[in-house]
Amino acid sequence: MTSSIRIVNMPSSSVTIQLPDWLRDRLDVVSAGTYAKQDSQMDLALQIAAENVKRGTGGPFGAAVFNTQNGMLVSVGVNLVTSSGLSITHAEVVAITMAQAALQHYDLADVALPPLRLATSAEPCSMCIGAIHWSGLKSIIASARDEDVREIGFDEGNKPDDWVAQFEKSGIKYVSDVLRDRGRAVLQAYARGGGRIYNAGTSE
Amino acid sequence: MTSSIRIVNMPSSSVTIQLPDWLRDRLDVVSAGTYAKQDSQMDLALQIAAENVKRGTGGPFGAAVFNTQNGMLVSVGVNLVTSSGLSITHAEVVAITMAQAALQHYDLADVALPPLRLATSAEPCSMCIGAIHWSGLKSIIASARDEDVREIGFDEGNKPDDWVAQFEKSGIKYVSDVLRDRGRAVLQAYARGGGRIYNAGTSE
Repeated sequence: MTSSIRIVNMPSSSVTIQLPDWLRDRLDVVSAGTYAKQDSQMDLALQIAAENVKRGTGGPFGAAVFNTQNGMLVSVGVNLVTSSGLSITHAEVVAITMAQAALQHYDLADVALPPLRLATSAEPCSMCIGAIHWSGLKSIIASARDEDVREIGFDEGNKPDDWVAQFEKSGIKYVSDVLRDRGRAVLQAYARGGGRIYNAGTSE
Repeated sequence: MTSSIRIVNMPSSSVTIQLPDWLRDRLDVVSAGTYAKQDSQMDLALQIAAENVKRGTGGPFGAAVFNTQNGMLVSVGVNLVTSSGLSITHAEVVAITMAQAALQHYDLADVALPPLRLATSAEPCSMCIGAIHWSGLKSIIASARDEDVREIGFDEGNKPDDWVAQFEKSGIKYVSDVLRDRGRAVLQAYARGGGRIYNAGTSE
């Protein structure tokens, strides 16, 4: 094939997804065991979700990937849709992508890797359920429920009725309602502050 | 909040998704109307899917976004999972992301934008259905069927039974089986050539 593709305005050939400065600046090196417990893992996801709202860098969502063997952090992500202009930049997608970049492997279930867990400040949407499926992550904990997210207006998309059962069937352990009140509070704070509900087709 | 996040190996704070050189080099500027027809749009998606297999830069999938008002190309994407090490880099996600980067908007349904269509060499998987939902794209055409993709071993994930009906309900026009034989042929060529079936948990 030698033909060229025909366009008028040169399209993009490269896109960078970047953590906001405030989040990058908070990354710091310490000892093992810091994030040994489920609640401390979720606490981090909720902290950065709340900070993301306060800083205005995206939607009210935070996520992080942990090494559950040594209680260490592998990656973080926050929702960046409105600041990046990219609809895929949900907190879970960002955290998964940063984890894969750090570990240099698309398959987080690879036997050479330690057991990993994703903590997310809200239940995954239709896209993120699929992203988790492909990522190889086998342990997920979530704070706010799908209904809490929809309550403030987000259209989470068409999720299979049996998505939790299917997760379990694929060997993905899923725990919901971890510090749910705090997860809900972040969502409510975003809504109260007039945060943009960035459903497709509703932008001004 | 002034505390730092505790990690041991500094995690990634930036990830770049890049089209392969061969694809970037083929991008070229021409006149309107080149991709006016559905078949010519799909032909491009299939060409780059086949080339992606030949070049060994990822899975057997290609996608592109078109301006259906003037028949011009907005973005292209190919599957980059094995070359980028990022499980989200399906052809559709790459094409959507590059389109949003070019148009500088997360909402491709914005009234200020022309009508856009995504052509994909195979039906969207569970993740890409959700990615389409959030992208704002309102017209999708697909070549190979879900069953053709599963036939060569890919685990497309848990798709809602009624995903096509739900697309239509959200105003997304979906047309399947466009040049399906060619879409299937690309998949079969990948399988015959020993291309990696990158399902989670199966990497060597």
